[in-house]
Amino acid sequence: MNENLFISCSLYPMRKDSSFHSFLKDIKSLQSLEIFFKSSERKRYSRDFFDYSPVLKELLHECCADLVVKPLSANAIVSVAELCQRYKVPLTLRGSGTGNYGQCVPINGGVVMLMTSINKIRNFDSSTGDVTVEAGCLLGELNKYLLNKGRHLKLMPSTCRTASVAGFIAGGSGGIGSVRWGFLRDPGHLLALEIVTLEKCSRKIQLDASSAEAINHAYGTNGIITALKLSTCIAIDWHEIAIDCNSFSKAMEILLSSTQAAVDLFLCTLLDKKIIEHIPSWSGEPRGKHRLLLLVSPNGITTLERISQKAGADFYNLGPEKEKEGNGLRELSWNHTTMHMRSIDSNLTYLQMLLPQPEINAINAINAKWGDNILWHLEGVRQQGVQRIAALPLIQWQGQKKLESLMKDCKEAGAVLFNPHVITVEDGGLGVIDSDQVQAKKQYDPQGILNPGKLRGWQQFT
Amino acid sequence: MNENLFISCSLYPMRKDSSFHSFLKDIKSLQSLEIFFKSSERKRYSRDFFDYSPVLKELLHECCADLVVKPLSANAIVSVAELCQRYKVPLTLRGSGTGNYGQCVPINGGVVMLMTSINKIRNFDSSTGDVTVEAGCLLGELNKYLLNKGRHLKLMPSTCRTASVAGFIAGGSGGIGSVRWGFLRDPGHLLALEIVTLEKCSRKIQLDASSAEAINHAYGTNGIITALKLSTCIAIDWHEIAIDCNSFSKAMEILLSSTQAAVDLFLCTLLDKKIIEHIPSWSGEPRGKHRLLLLVSPNGITTLERISQKAGADFYNLGPEKEKEGNGLRELSWNHTTMHMRSIDSNLTYLQMLLPQPEINAINAINAKWGDNILWHLEGVRQQGVQRIAALPLIQWQGQKKLESLMKDCKEAGAVLFNPHVITVEDGGLGVIDSDQVQAKKQYDPQGILNPGKLRGWQQFT
Repeated sequence: MNENLFISCSLYPMRKDSSFHSFLKDIKSLQSLEIFFKSSERKRYSRDFFDYSPVLKELLHECCADLVVKPLSANAIVSVAELCQRYKVPLTLRGSGTGNYGQCVPINGGVVMLMTSINKIRNFDSSTGDVTVEAGCLLGELNKYLLNKGRHLKLMPSTCRTASVAGFIAGGSGGIGSVRWGFLRDPGHLLALEIVTLEKCSRKIQLDASSAEAINHAYGTNGIITALKLSTCIAIDWHEIAIDCNSFSKAMEILLSSTQAAVDLFLCTLLDKKIIEHIPSWSGEPRGKHRLLLLVSPNGITTLERISQKAGADFYNLGPEKEKEGNGLRELSWNHTTMHMRSIDSNLTYLQMLLPQPEINAINAINAKWGDNILWHLEGVRQQGVQRIAALPLIQWQGQKKLESLMKDCKEAGAVLFNPHVITVEDGGLGVIDSDQVQAKKQYDPQGILNPGKLRGWQQFT
Repeated sequence: MNENLFISCSLYPMRKDSSFHSFLKDIKSLQSLEIFFKSSERKRYSRDFFDYSPVLKELLHECCADLVVKPLSANAIVSVAELCQRYKVPLTLRGSGTGNYGQCVPINGGVVMLMTSINKIRNFDSSTGDVTVEAGCLLGELNKYLLNKGRHLKLMPSTCRTASVAGFIAGGSGGIGSVRWGFLRDPGHLLALEIVTLEKCSRKIQLDASSAEAINHAYGTNGIITALKLSTCIAIDWHEIAIDCNSFSKAMEILLSSTQAAVDLFLCTLLDKKIIEHIPSWSGEPRGKHRLLLLVSPNGITTLERISQKAGADFYNLGPEKEKEGNGLRELSWNHTTMHMRSIDSNLTYLQMLLPQPEINAINAINAKWGDNILWHLEGVRQQGVQRIAALPLIQWQGQKKLESLMKDCKEAGAVLFNPHVITVEDGGLGVIDSDQVQAKKQYDPQGILNPGKLRGWQQFT
């Protein structure tokens, strides 16, 4: 996997060629720009959570920016873009570095640009709830702001408190809220983008929802997102529910019944009992059973209780979520589950896939061969208007060959894999090149300055 | 169809046997009970909109109650129930008579009991939005009450303004809101019931959501619903959208894309251009194109516009719905479409079905044989967690044989029919006997007093 990909890591020492020297001089002359030279800083800002994947760790751990900059104004972003363009210095964008596909890792070195100081909330449209916000705003801050307006985000990663909004758009796909609102690329989430281009004269341009599609989930390879307009939803006073169940297949039935019922859900996670034993006890003490974690509106509680009782499971109403910031159920879901488990056993890695229907058949088929090596973590999601089940199973790392064999078996069982052990946009997605993404890069980054090596379609084009 | 069913219609003259005479005497002695003797009144209250079906019209048009009563108190309901029980007089319940399967038609005569004066809203739970309401409350009134609390009903028939809440539960299945909230029998709608039984001593009993399932959609055959607890949803300022499209299959794609997008919809109707020509012009003048009618939240408007533009269709934002009470899009949907079309051409009748996926194949298959005789009316619905398409096509009545042949072809194309040309609960549904419904009738109406002839499972049991 990736054996043909040549990654030119810069191995900590900063470039010393004369061109880079001139570039540095110009960069230093810019206004409103913090610059980080220290190797510890450059190293720190050249990473995300790619070490969830031993494959990516091997590929990326030595990658390091030659320079890290933090623009404090929109103009500084344009200036950095122009300089990188002029000097042909790779430019990789970084929000909070909470991704886990290495999207912000500068695999050809160059500049890493920290977007976190460009973080204002520009506008809230009270008639629609749409919010226009700058790239570096933390999702947690944005969500707090929205809650004061009676709204909240439709989709959030489990890293919501620390992740940046543009990083989520550039590299995320869904998360908390996906059980109701599907995935980030579905129409109805991203309504507009403001980007800075890497053309000869960098421009700041506004893209409507259709034009923004090609920039959405492109790892910052085809435009610098500086602001975006997002749709939000009416805030709901989510309540936390835990449901314990002896049988995993029965628990899956509860998951499906819950997502198919006429109730408002915001999270519907199912964790193997061995996971429950090891993660923080915010959902209650382990009781030797598999556990569903749900966020439901107040008027859905009795219906979930009924579904749970019908299945002979144990129902726990944990009360309103808002009293539990930082240690609530959502912190045990999506890739926070992966994080918690890896903090116990760093030899664990994971997969991400959409299970075929009926899901239990795929699980059984995969378990038949891999049951000893896999801990199931499922998430209810809405995919193209259908309540489906995504899986983020934890697996023991036994080398790349075993991993590939497991992934092959998952595919053969009918699962759609979103491989988290690869570095390109396409390979981490459906595997196919999106010509609109490549076209956007041709238009907005014709020199291929932005985040080189991450858009396979561009590499093939050039 | 129904040829084996013996329907003893009472043909207007009131029964004159001595037992009925004693019954009458006892009935007249009851407090808080209006009694209607006139044949015009008895006739009027023995009907619903069954004449949408020429088959039902033939079967039911001569049916008439021997007596119509309107209880003004809960005690009067119990007294009527006890008397009907004692004298073995059939008792059929009636809300507003807006059904179209003949659910309130007394096919064995006897008493029709009007529930419309038992109509108080008993309780609103502000923490959940759940509302407890008496049987005869009109859905329109209930919805107005809820709107003042910032909520509204999750599901409504197109007859919402005049239909009663218990009539909807007893005979309805879905309607406006089904695109988001599925169908009435899905968990999460009906949370509790209060019923009066027809046991030797009639009791008023409370049923929780699970026990209420057997009474939900049973045409009032197995208990007298006197009050019910319903789940509601947060009120949304719905906006009306019309989308015109030359190609019907393209319009179907827009329908599916809209229901699959991350937008809040409350209605997603698609009408053949020939229907648009004949119904009231509340969605705009006909433009020779097929038309989608949507109710969408304010933040979904631009996304629908985008989906529409992408498909090359014409998009019309008709503004907020609330300014249009009585002549808005929802009055052109579900069986109001049928009503409007029948007011133009009373030879039209209809079918109700869930289309198989991909829907266009079924439509094409049915059109190949019946295209000249069918006008398609589609509704986006959520069925077991999947965005599906229901069809309520208008068809020219060409006799029962042709109708049966068409229905056979629809089934062969993979559609699930909900036959509106039959009088039993089962035949109008999935065709199978629900043993819980029969069991509930054994328990709560052991003498088979309630709405005889409508529960096939009971007839087979006895």
